[in-house]
Amino acid sequence: MTTRGDGRALDQLREVRFTRSWLDHAEGSVLVEYGKTRVLIAASVTEGVPRWRRGSGLGWVTAEYAMLPRATHDRSDRESVKGRIGGRTHEISRLIGRSLRAVIDYQALGENTIVLDCDVLQADGGTRTAAITGAYVALCDAVAWLRQRNLLVAEPLTGSVQAVSVGIVAGTPMLDLAYSEDSTADTDMNVVMSGERYIEVQGTAEQQPFERSVMDDLLDLAAKGCAELDRLQQEALNR
Amino acid sequence: MTTRGDGRALDQLREVRFTRSWLDHAEGSVLVEYGKTRVLIAASVTEGVPRWRRGSGLGWVTAEYAMLPRATHDRSDRESVKGRIGGRTHEISRLIGRSLRAVIDYQALGENTIVLDCDVLQADGGTRTAAITGAYVALCDAVAWLRQRNLLVAEPLTGSVQAVSVGIVAGTPMLDLAYSEDSTADTDMNVVMSGERYIEVQGTAEQQPFERSVMDDLLDLAAKGCAELDRLQQEALNR
Amino acid sequence: MTTRGDGRALDQLREVRFTRSWLDHAEGSVLVEYGKTRVLIAASVTEGVPRWRRGSGLGWVTAEYAMLPRATHDRSDRESVKGRIGGRTHEISRLIGRSLRAVIDYQALGENTIVLDCDVLQADGGTRTAAITGAYVALCDAVAWLRQRNLLVAEPLTGSVQAVSVGIVAGTPMLDLAYSEDSTADTDMNVVMSGERYIEVQGTAEQQPFERSVMDDLLDLAAKGCAELDRLQQEALNR
Amino acid sequence: MTTRGDGRALDQLREVRFTRSWLDHAEGSVLVEYGKTRVLIAASVTEGVPRWRRGSGLGWVTAEYAMLPRATHDRSDRESVKGRIGGRTHEISRLIGRSLRAVIDYQALGENTIVLDCDVLQADGGTRTAAITGAYVALCDAVAWLRQRNLLVAEPLTGSVQAVSVGIVAGTPMLDLAYSEDSTADTDMNVVMSGERYIEVQGTAEQQPFERSVMDDLLDLAAKGCAELDRLQQEALNR
Amino acid sequence: MTTRGDGRALDQLREVRFTRSWLDHAEGSVLVEYGKTRVLIAASVTEGVPRWRRGSGLGWVTAEYAMLPRATHDRSDRESVKGRIGGRTHEISRLIGRSLRAVIDYQALGENTIVLDCDVLQADGGTRTAAITGAYVALCDAVAWLRQRNLLVAEPLTGSVQAVSVGIVAGTPMLDLAYSEDSTADTDMNVVMSGERYIEVQGTAEQQPFERSVMDDLLDLAAKGCAELDRLQQEALNR
Amino acid sequence: MTTRGDGRALDQLREVRFTRSWLDHAEGSVLVEYGKTRVLIAASVTEGVPRWRRGSGLGWVTAEYAMLPRATHDRSDRESVKGRIGGRTHEISRLIGRSLRAVIDYQALGENTIVLDCDVLQADGGTRTAAITGAYVALCDAVAWLRQRNLLVAEPLTGSVQAVSVGIVAGTPMLDLAYSEDSTADTDMNVVMSGERYIEVQGTAEQQPFERSVMDDLLDLAAKGCAELDRLQQEALNR
Repeated sequence: MTTRGDGRALDQLREVRFTRSWLDHAEGSVLVEYGKTRVLIAASVTEGVPRWRRGSGLGWVTAEYAMLPRATHDRSDRESVKGRIGGRTHEISRLIGRSLRAVIDYQALGENTIVLDCDVLQADGGTRTAAITGAYVALCDAVAWLRQRNLLVAEPLTGSVQAVSVGIVAGTPMLDLAYSEDSTADTDMNVVMSGERYIEVQGTAEQQPFERSVMDDLLDLAAKGCAELDRLQQEALNR
Repeated sequence: MTTRGDGRALDQLREVRFTRSWLDHAEGSVLVEYGKTRVLIAASVTEGVPRWRRGSGLGWVTAEYAMLPRATHDRSDRESVKGRIGGRTHEISRLIGRSLRAVIDYQALGENTIVLDCDVLQADGGTRTAAITGAYVALCDAVAWLRQRNLLVAEPLTGSVQAVSVGIVAGTPMLDLAYSEDSTADTDMNVVMSGERYIEVQGTAEQQPFERSVMDDLLDLAAKGCAELDRLQQEALNR
Repeated sequence: MTTRGDGRALDQLREVRFTRSWLDHAEGSVLVEYGKTRVLIAASVTEGVPRWRRGSGLGWVTAEYAMLPRATHDRSDRESVKGRIGGRTHEISRLIGRSLRAVIDYQALGENTIVLDCDVLQADGGTRTAAITGAYVALCDAVAWLRQRNLLVAEPLTGSVQAVSVGIVAGTPMLDLAYSEDSTADTDMNVVMSGERYIEVQGTAEQQPFERSVMDDLLDLAAKGCAELDRLQQEALNR
Repeated sequence: MTTRGDGRALDQLREVRFTRSWLDHAEGSVLVEYGKTRVLIAASVTEGVPRWRRGSGLGWVTAEYAMLPRATHDRSDRESVKGRIGGRTHEISRLIGRSLRAVIDYQALGENTIVLDCDVLQADGGTRTAAITGAYVALCDAVAWLRQRNLLVAEPLTGSVQAVSVGIVAGTPMLDLAYSEDSTADTDMNVVMSGERYIEVQGTAEQQPFERSVMDDLLDLAAKGCAELDRLQQEALNR
Repeated sequence: MTTRGDGRALDQLREVRFTRSWLDHAEGSVLVEYGKTRVLIAASVTEGVPRWRRGSGLGWVTAEYAMLPRATHDRSDRESVKGRIGGRTHEISRLIGRSLRAVIDYQALGENTIVLDCDVLQADGGTRTAAITGAYVALCDAVAWLRQRNLLVAEPLTGSVQAVSVGIVAGTPMLDLAYSEDSTADTDMNVVMSGERYIEVQGTAEQQPFERSVMDDLLDLAAKGCAELDRLQQEALNR
Repeated sequence: MTTRGDGRALDQLREVRFTRSWLDHAEGSVLVEYGKTRVLIAASVTEGVPRWRRGSGLGWVTAEYAMLPRATHDRSDRESVKGRIGGRTHEISRLIGRSLRAVIDYQALGENTIVLDCDVLQADGGTRTAAITGAYVALCDAVAWLRQRNLLVAEPLTGSVQAVSVGIVAGTPMLDLAYSEDSTADTDMNVVMSGERYIEVQGTAEQQPFERSVMDDLLDLAAKGCAELDRLQQEALNR
């Protein structure tokens, strides 16, 4: 098997699009699409930092991830109505925040906070990786907003951030899984990179424990995908 | 004064746009815009009705309204994070549901449920009225989806639904208030109509109690706006 | 049909009673009755205002509405036990607060807060309108308490407040609906007035959208009822 | 010292009043007063029992205790607004339920449930003891309601229930403490009796641990008070 | 019957053990065992007191009680997962805190707070009494910790604290009930003592109201048990 | 640097101990220690499965992780008191459940559920890895309990499970990080293995993104640690 359900090559990303400034009020905003997966990201800048960080001279970056009830095939209940945030939501919010903070120099940011709201408008697999890749673009725009107003101490971005999922589907390693692929994967890995280096690797055996060689193959595939995403981000930021 | 900050006539709507089928999974969906106010509506159809209604042969229509944290000028906290839904959110959800149910024949709908999720992506005044007007379009599409699958008992829609805000700003009655107008209005009224008849009228004195003549003027203005919205809905539904 | 189930004329209020100083601790308190509907109102005065208003020199008035579990025909669960306040409760609390604030001069009140707790001891229709009408009386007593202690900047009350429900029952407009009438009404309107002017109008089509002429009839009927309530409030306040 | 602040003898109850049928909808209801302490009790009968008891042939009795926000000298926040019930509220609800269940023959009650809602309208010490004593009266009326409809298996009440507080104030044992006494007591005891026998005894050293002789004195005083309350309950039930 | 299921005499405690310093981080800690009942107590010292007590010069002692989900025969749901603390948990936490505060001189403690976390690792009856008796030992160690650092104003402990359950099982008074005894008791009493004086007495008729003589017998039995526990505490503290 | 603060070699585990049957009621239980980190695990067996799985013939295994408030150096608030479970707790509970499910044959387990409660009594780094390694032992005992009662369809365990943390501390790769090491690590990885194969890999750049070679070194170190843990588990299970 050399192609997939949607005609892609095994090591091919879905069509990736970044629409910058999708919102009028946010200091940075992007509508990012990985095929049918569509995530709206708003970067909100506020002066000051959370209480536990005040007076340190250091900035802060954090993220919140959520899904609209009908982003998925079947409608799911709102977390605001249930009155509590699910474990998956918490976990992904933490991952996104951690990933972006890996390329931030807090001293250079000064006592400013950037909140990245990642709201999934439509889900077709890879929502967390699309959110991270898009959040980097929105973060760049928010940093530019601060720069224009002379609110930065120095240049806070120390690198770029990309993320992609990889997995073993029907025995074959594949890049950037769509929902139909992800739901039948044996092994599934989310990789967050900054150029050629790693920020976060999360691999999970969905069926059987996997060999070291499988991990090596998946890491290679992810590196290829992240390099391509890096190029697309730069393109979008240069428009 | 004959025109407004954005150049509109006193009795002129903002530019209204309906983008149908904005989502791939939902049975009906619309991105509705009243100027910069942008609301994404997903109509989800499920077979069956809530427990208290089972076996009655009657269908059900309900709505949920919410706002993304950065829909507004300043970021607000997520209700899912706060763990409780605010009073304003509840009130608007109830209003939208009630408004759409006014044109539904439950018997004809059969034991099917339609949930209308109205998520405000960007807010610039009139979010609840845009949500109602858009929800009618999404509802029509969801009903068409049921019709194509022969899941209806009869034709469930008994009329159309439009909504618009009107108010007295700086002593002058105006149609379809933008945020900057709404926040300085003396009196503010949301009117939900079905063609020439009324579904809901909510008028509030923001500053001083108002005279009966003021209410009459505002009702006239709203009727004009709703007639125009009715025409635009039909246009969108015929595309 | 010229009379109703309980023998009233179509434009006749139920027996309305105000028992002032029903509580020993509150700065103002009233047990208000609209027939069998019985609402206990406590006006609590505290020096100072909520944080977001401090240092402004302006006072604040707010309200909370709640129902005892066995106020109704069947017992309902306590909201404190359920751990969340229902949408209806929120909506009515907001309506009561807004209605009373319409006759308050915040500057004259000075940095004082008055909380109006409206607890429905028994419900037979019109609980929100009875709460508003009674809250005005309790508010007057709380203001008198402040006046006696020289804690006011000037006279804060700029008018009176009355509220009544009206509706179309079996095709006929009626004043001050009891529960049995309200539950079968075609159209139902709550009107809050300050003498002859309007503070809030909330009209809802429970069955069919209604004509403009219906709204006009209902507004006339409500005005008549509020005038009578205004007279009864003055009588109670003069005792 | 032989009398108290309010002129009572050390072993004298405050004026105790029972107003039966204070509510129109409840199967049993009483407004009970111990001086200024005023508790409204509604006994609600429903056919059937909670799930864990179904099919056992046994009935159930339970209670919920709550306080209006302005029952006390200073307004306290609503537990429904706080979103959780405080420890004190839980504890008293459990005490009331346990106390009444001590005189119920579940078999005789059949699979019926009686919920006793005890809402404190005004608090001046002894709210839990007033609630228990009043709840017995409301329970009798609810049982009578069941009896009239032939819904009982046999006679479910196996005794009466009374409760009173006693304490050491300024070194002296006193019966039925008012708030001003209770807040300065060294030792404080709530005693629930069924005629001459004990259902519950809860004694607490508020300042210093106390001697066995103190406990004996307080138990004697409580027995005297409960005997008087038993007489007053019978009087009220015979009216 | 002169012995019980587990071979104990009627007035005999289960084997009681105190393992001090079970934890490395806490300022005081004890694993207390009453037979199979096993409670881990951590005493945490923090400088300062809750906001409502600041600047008073007085210290504070409080307690929290909880049970691991599989402490009991059948697993129970976590209160953290349910999102609310049950009434029983609240009530016992309050009892433990109150009991320990009865032997604390707040002035001598200075503005320090000691929190006693009592976590039941295994439950076999008497968890609250074991918690209180063990908490006293942990409290002594936490006070010693403060003393060594010269953080006390004076000696804050004014006495010792012991607790034990007593009850009427199969018509016979028994000391220190195990779960199998407690669950079939007619009357059940928890007694908290400070040497020969009483801090708290909570007696409950589980089946039938009980006579005064029963209470006297149970109090005698409890006094005997507490004297023995006092001796065992001293022994443990002297090791 | 060839040894660490506590004298261990870079590739040396802390002292690991398994105390089986630490609890009397649970079907399987272990107190697992990685040095000062101490986690109590209770495996609870119940017949039947959650509703969404009924009738499938398949079993279920799930886990809950929690920490006692004074497990850590400073006391933290209880999640039951805060009313919500934190993101970290959710994430670890999900990880433990997923890890154990990777070696379960649901068909062989039959419609039985095993819940693994992992309560951290004392924390000194590596609580999640100790929990997973210990949970495998408790799971084996729970499976043995089912086997003895002939409640299994076939043998449900398809492999063993071990977990250990590895990281780069002061530029050097180290095995099984204690808290003091973990809090200063540049890169930190949790590895869950089943013998020589991988169940889950979670690597995070705490400071700088890391090279592929760093990941390879850490994976080697983790494999060595897991092999040793596998041996220690077998030893404990054979006792």
